[in-house]
Amino acid sequence: MKTKKIVFIGAGNLATHLAKAMYNSGYCIEQVFSRTEQSAQQLAHLVNAQYTTKLSEVLLGIDLYVVSLKDDALISLIPQIMDNKTESLVVHTSGSVPIDVWKGFGNRYGVVYPMQTFSKNKAVDFSTIPIFLEANQPANLALLHDYFDGLSSKVYEATSEQRKKLHLAAVFACNFSNHMYTLSEEILKRYGLPFDAMYSLIDETTAKIHEIEPAKAQTGPAIRGDQAVMDKHLGMLSDMPEAQEIYRLVSQSIQKYKSE
Amino acid sequence: MKTKKIVFIGAGNLATHLAKAMYNSGYCIEQVFSRTEQSAQQLAHLVNAQYTTKLSEVLLGIDLYVVSLKDDALISLIPQIMDNKTESLVVHTSGSVPIDVWKGFGNRYGVVYPMQTFSKNKAVDFSTIPIFLEANQPANLALLHDYFDGLSSKVYEATSEQRKKLHLAAVFACNFSNHMYTLSEEILKRYGLPFDAMYSLIDETTAKIHEIEPAKAQTGPAIRGDQAVMDKHLGMLSDMPEAQEIYRLVSQSIQKYKSE
Repeated sequence: MKTKKIVFIGAGNLATHLAKAMYNSGYCIEQVFSRTEQSAQQLAHLVNAQYTTKLSEVLLGIDLYVVSLKDDALISLIPQIMDNKTESLVVHTSGSVPIDVWKGFGNRYGVVYPMQTFSKNKAVDFSTIPIFLEANQPANLALLHDYFDGLSSKVYEATSEQRKKLHLAAVFACNFSNHMYTLSEEILKRYGLPFDAMYSLIDETTAKIHEIEPAKAQTGPAIRGDQAVMDKHLGMLSDMPEAQEIYRLVSQSIQKYKSE
Repeated sequence: MKTKKIVFIGAGNLATHLAKAMYNSGYCIEQVFSRTEQSAQQLAHLVNAQYTTKLSEVLLGIDLYVVSLKDDALISLIPQIMDNKTESLVVHTSGSVPIDVWKGFGNRYGVVYPMQTFSKNKAVDFSTIPIFLEANQPANLALLHDYFDGLSSKVYEATSEQRKKLHLAAVFACNFSNHMYTLSEEILKRYGLPFDAMYSLIDETTAKIHEIEPAKAQTGPAIRGDQAVMDKHLGMLSDMPEAQEIYRLVSQSIQKYKSE
């Protein structure tokens, strides 16, 4: 068991997976805070910690506070979070919030951004997840490396500007591609066809971009300029107006990237 | 070497991969036709066949003609393709063209639709690719099973209606998710960040939907309703207008699927 004491403020998907990974690597998670009692309790149970639903009850004198909240909650709660903790090391986990959000509230702060898609009931292998670190002083950055280098083989440093871009790129690569799967499944469901018919296609699409740039790996009616097929598809989507508009727009964008 | 003789009409990515797979499993590819001499020659060379750029020179008396052309070319060329071949078995490989396109032009016809994304320079393992068969008579369907059952462990039968839906669903699952990767890479490129930072995220996104329905696997600012992040992202995309519009529309669609 490592001697450092850690508190998690927030118990969402990212917090849950990160807390579990730290706990499993020997860190002592002292306490979990969440406004939702059930979430606080669940995560606390998983990592053998206390829990609270009141920020005023968060323990003082802890080595590392990991704050993992929705961006707007994070920003509005910072004054309370930092109450009596100006000398503790405090990090948030957000891709899109700059490090300077801590400025004026504490003296030792940073960011730990694990770039992965975390779902509550799906285990992840933390050792392959890129983690991007930033801190307000070299000594604090060194401490963050101490905490996180053992968790993943891909620990990097990134400025707030770089992290913002990484997060935006991740929304396209992960969140939006997943929604394309959702729309695909919805189309199949409407006709009683099983989504698992798509698995090998999806796996190959993903495997391919490890070898070929995605723009060069593009296939399908839009890149072929097969207007006859695209018109038929748009017609078939008449009862799914969002999907129809997405079809039109994404096809245009594919064609634009071809001509460039 | 199997005794059946096969001619490929078309030498695009799908034709290339299918012809190679058939050739490697022992079939004799007699001839390749393409309007583009270089394409015809390249594929013919790969499968040890003759080639021609004139439909009038396509060999007669062949056991199976595999027609793999863009949809509009296929439809406009059918009368020429079928010239003197009314008794041969002829198939096309299109997801979105119904079997009836052959009606009146021949007596023995069908469809062989391998559902995969084929790029010219990326080898594929045909044995895991779903292949959907359709034929105008049970005897012809049986023959198609003879040809293709040995090529893949996932050979199914599908009507023209089902195939149309499978193809549309595949455009979302494969072509459109790949374009999300392209936009992701474009964002990273503009800031000098490497696309391979996204690999583990993309791999996990793909792995997850083998276990969880994509709608339930959705993560990110849109499903969390994190408007602050979405507004920042839209601002960052001001110099990529298509990507900005896609961001807006896909986020809306994600939120719609949440509330349903």
